Amino acid sequence: MAASNPLVRDRDADFLLYEVHDALRLCALPHFADHDRETFDLFLGSAARLAREQLFANYRDMDEVGSTMVDGRVRVPPAMAELWRQLCDLGLVNAGRPYGVEGGQLPSTIATVAYLYLMAGNAAAVGFALLTSGSAHLIEAFGDDALRKAFMARMYSGEWTGTMALTEPGAGSALGDLTTRAESIEGREGVYRISGSKIFISGGDNDFAENIVHLTLARRVGDPAGTRGISLFVVPRMRPTGGDLGSDTLEFNDVHTSQLIHKIGWRGLPSLGLSYGEAGDCQGWLLGEPGKGLKYMFQMMNEARILVGANATATASAAYHESLAYARERTQGRRLDRRGDEPVPLVEHPDVRRMLLRQKAIVEGSMSLLIEAGVASDLAEHGESPEERERARLILDILTPITKTFAAERGFEANNLALQIFGGYGYSSEYLPELWLREQRLNTIHEGTTGIQSLDLLGRKVVAGGGKALVVLAEAIGRDIAGARSSGVDEELAAAIEAELARAIEVTRALAGRGVSGDPIGMLGHSVDFLNLFSNLLVGWQWLRSAAAATRGLGSKPSAEEAEFYAGKIAAARYWIRTDLADNRRLAELCLSAEDSYINVADGSF
Amino acid sequence: MAASNPLVRDRDADFLLYEVHDALRLCALPHFADHDRETFDLFLGSAARLAREQLFANYRDMDEVGSTMVDGRVRVPPAMAELWRQLCDLGLVNAGRPYGVEGGQLPSTIATVAYLYLMAGNAAAVGFALLTSGSAHLIEAFGDDALRKAFMARMYSGEWTGTMALTEPGAGSALGDLTTRAESIEGREGVYRISGSKIFISGGDNDFAENIVHLTLARRVGDPAGTRGISLFVVPRMRPTGGDLGSDTLEFNDVHTSQLIHKIGWRGLPSLGLSYGEAGDCQGWLLGEPGKGLKYMFQMMNEARILVGANATATASAAYHESLAYARERTQGRRLDRRGDEPVPLVEHPDVRRMLLRQKAIVEGSMSLLIEAGVASDLAEHGESPEERERARLILDILTPITKTFAAERGFEANNLALQIFGGYGYSSEYLPELWLREQRLNTIHEGTTGIQSLDLLGRKVVAGGGKALVVLAEAIGRDIAGARSSGVDEELAAAIEAELARAIEVTRALAGRGVSGDPIGMLGHSVDFLNLFSNLLVGWQWLRSAAAATRGLGSKPSAEEAEFYAGKIAAARYWIRTDLADNRRLAELCLSAEDSYINVADGSF
Repeated sequence: MAASNPLVRDRDADFLLYEVHDALRLCALPHFADHDRETFDLFLGSAARLAREQLFANYRDMDEVGSTMVDGRVRVPPAMAELWRQLCDLGLVNAGRPYGVEGGQLPSTIATVAYLYLMAGNAAAVGFALLTSGSAHLIEAFGDDALRKAFMARMYSGEWTGTMALTEPGAGSALGDLTTRAESIEGREGVYRISGSKIFISGGDNDFAENIVHLTLARRVGDPAGTRGISLFVVPRMRPTGGDLGSDTLEFNDVHTSQLIHKIGWRGLPSLGLSYGEAGDCQGWLLGEPGKGLKYMFQMMNEARILVGANATATASAAYHESLAYARERTQGRRLDRRGDEPVPLVEHPDVRRMLLRQKAIVEGSMSLLIEAGVASDLAEHGESPEERERARLILDILTPITKTFAAERGFEANNLALQIFGGYGYSSEYLPELWLREQRLNTIHEGTTGIQSLDLLGRKVVAGGGKALVVLAEAIGRDIAGARSSGVDEELAAAIEAELARAIEVTRALAGRGVSGDPIGMLGHSVDFLNLFSNLLVGWQWLRSAAAATRGLGSKPSAEEAEFYAGKIAAARYWIRTDLADNRRLAELCLSAEDSYINVADGSF
Repeated sequence: MAASNPLVRDRDADFLLYEVHDALRLCALPHFADHDRETFDLFLGSAARLAREQLFANYRDMDEVGSTMVDGRVRVPPAMAELWRQLCDLGLVNAGRPYGVEGGQLPSTIATVAYLYLMAGNAAAVGFALLTSGSAHLIEAFGDDALRKAFMARMYSGEWTGTMALTEPGAGSALGDLTTRAESIEGREGVYRISGSKIFISGGDNDFAENIVHLTLARRVGDPAGTRGISLFVVPRMRPTGGDLGSDTLEFNDVHTSQLIHKIGWRGLPSLGLSYGEAGDCQGWLLGEPGKGLKYMFQMMNEARILVGANATATASAAYHESLAYARERTQGRRLDRRGDEPVPLVEHPDVRRMLLRQKAIVEGSMSLLIEAGVASDLAEHGESPEERERARLILDILTPITKTFAAERGFEANNLALQIFGGYGYSSEYLPELWLREQRLNTIHEGTTGIQSLDLLGRKVVAGGGKALVVLAEAIGRDIAGARSSGVDEELAAAIEAELARAIEVTRALAGRGVSGDPIGMLGHSVDFLNLFSNLLVGWQWLRSAAAATRGLGSKPSAEEAEFYAGKIAAARYWIRTDLADNRRLAELCLSAEDSYINVADGSF
């Protein structure tokens, strides 16, 4: 069964890209002028093939083998070396980067869908590529020619890999507390002696690439405490000999692997403790201006958050299709409404159907949100006018924490339902759902926990610039409601989104008002409820868009199979809006009442 | 930190047993006349000590070692032999059984709380004891003297262990489809030749007990298809030599272990495939009357379902206390309302407090529900009048699927929150939350999935006897609402339970009406939503009872520490009622509208 798992269905990807989100309009932008449906589909087809034939084929095995540490170096699963070559051959590391850095100059929108296939096939393997891509992108954006030549080029080509080294054992998510030191080296401008420890560094070592480049946050001696004093450094494991960026040979740069974390998933992508400068000889190159490290890193963090959302969606998608195939094949029990002699397939039981449609609503709703974010990202960078770019940027800002968290939290729920459909077999490692569940579990934690995302959304994104982002978002949703109505969508669905949009705006205003009047707890005490309310709405919006496209599709005399496909989209939209969006009334009450049971209880009362 | 985990807090157990549920009133019943607070506390204290000092000390290790199969026999973790002796010494296997079978004649209520401690320490180890207890109890209830003497006595003493062998590879939860055969043996009345296969048999083999007795469902040759044709057999791995129950020696009974399932948790308690009669020489003794196998087995199944609820509660409890200790110790980040220089403990962040109070509400609410079920079970068996016994039985019937499923489903959510509080460390197997999460995952599956429990509740329990059970339950809740009011509980809480009880009754009547009018899908299509609605209500009822007891406690001039304890109960009650019970409006709408998106969508539309 696993062999025939599509991981992500091509028809769903096509529908969302071309019937819902009109991805081809991106080709009208000068930056993407070389692209068309054919180049998009070629890339997506290659990604799907690599995912299904190579990545997924090695998936279970890479989890079982895992990563190990031998004599201070990490060994990743042996299959990884060949997979890395294939991922690089596909052009994955710099697919979205411009021609000027040898990239494919593909829209983010298309790259994101390609990632979905690949991540659904093997998240750990793809993780190496995306970390390398993101860290090289930082050097591209903020490095001078010498740094780009010495590091970025070799990373984009896949010769070297990259990491982001933020977290420290004592500080966790509170990056302002980090203590890694950077001491200037006399006579070497822009080069610093680095010392300190990092933890949870994904891909922090491997045995398939010649070198690993750690984009490392550290504080220069004398710089202020807190986030203002943080700078970003390029710290390779092996440095050009003598620290001369022009050197063709490498020497050890005093970066050690101190610890291999025993993760419960993503076991092919090691998560490590790193120790810098144990011998006092670790050199780091300052990237961009001092004191802007966190700002720069957030370029990568925001990309990374969307990618976590993509990973979560992909992981839920693979499990959904596995459980759907199982529910169609496995016979058990009798129908509630027609007790016959023969057991029926699981898919005929209403509660199994509930678990399937719920997974579908989460997975495909999340895919749609990701593509919405992809389009916003492309328009934010390459839109025709400054106004278009600004509007897209504001929408992307709001979508980022939601895309990440919705996919991670509800994706976990979806993965859990997939396992449940397998019954007792689901509890065994002979079937894949438990592995996907383990992998999914990381996504509400890394790149900022759900709690942190909720503070980002409510404390920053929806109130930024006097709530301008929310106005722009509401306009976009309003246009889609009108569009859905003119497509002839069921009025129940359009009206629900309209009413809930109004409610979300009202809640946001009330909470922002508390913040302004000096009551941060009254504003932020229910930030996760607020995030859920917003997620329900935005996924409802995406389902309204899908229902509209499906309604148009049904009007075009489709084949019987296509008609069922479109009907499924409308059923999932209806399900989501009646079931989950219907929860927003309660969530709004909790936010508005500032329900205080956990806020004001004494610590000793837990 | 793990070493100081209380697993279950003594103060919580005392509060629920003596201040909320008045467990001492059971001592007024003749059957429990020998007991008093002292004997209760002695037993609970021994259980807590064994749990903390022995079971928990071996917990992580038993997961890592797991069970293996060597030459057709199973090896369980070596620590298990000594733990088994200690569990038997505690009298765990027959604590609740009468003196007549060498039992402790303890109330179920007290035994259940003891199980909570023990299961929180090591679910797999305790599993052997409870399976042995349940299967011996079947022989006690339905066997003749010869079977009791030959099997039951050795099981209650811990010399032999027992299992329940229901599930088959092809039938899963649809027991009516089972195919294991029982062929009469000429001249051996009540003895049959057994052949067939079972799967997921927990504790189906071990290397610490001399013999394993499988209580096995099979169909006699010639008996009808479906559930009516199922009988129950005692099928030991080793039989008395020659099949003579009086024999003192044993010989192999042709029961083989065909497969070791690679479970993702409970790894000390092997789950096996069994194969009966490969050599045509497996003998089974018919237990009770033919054709009543399923009915008998349901005695054990109902006990087992409550025990799954206890296990789920215990697993969530251990993780709650671990995450609470971590949140108090680990400093990270600044307060939202007071940005100081120093990082504060996690417990000061509102969203961490939410995750803690939510766990508390689930864990302690679930404990209370379990004790309610324990009291109902004791009164159903030993109540003073037939009327009292009948009322208790009806309440127990409704509580069973809810106690099991609420604890399993919401317990999983609680375990997930505990892991989340640990952040990146939670994703590593160096900390315990991931292990508890894996263990918990089984509880929505075994002894009937959540879907099956929901059909049991709505299709059977709440409508049985013309809805008599619901009337009795509503009376009990009504008395507790009045009691809470007279204890001076916050009227908001009492009024909410009153209103939601009325709503639950209304929904039940409407759905039952559809069933009566021949629309089973309209009745049962939202059975899981109905189960959730009922669970929210019943746990709200329990929290109202706790809030009433806490309000009384606060009125008795408690110490500062006790006052914080009581305030925590009231905060959790308020949280549950405002947050989860508040969801019942939406759930009722889904049930009443018979929302049909997943019910009527075509199979090809998923």
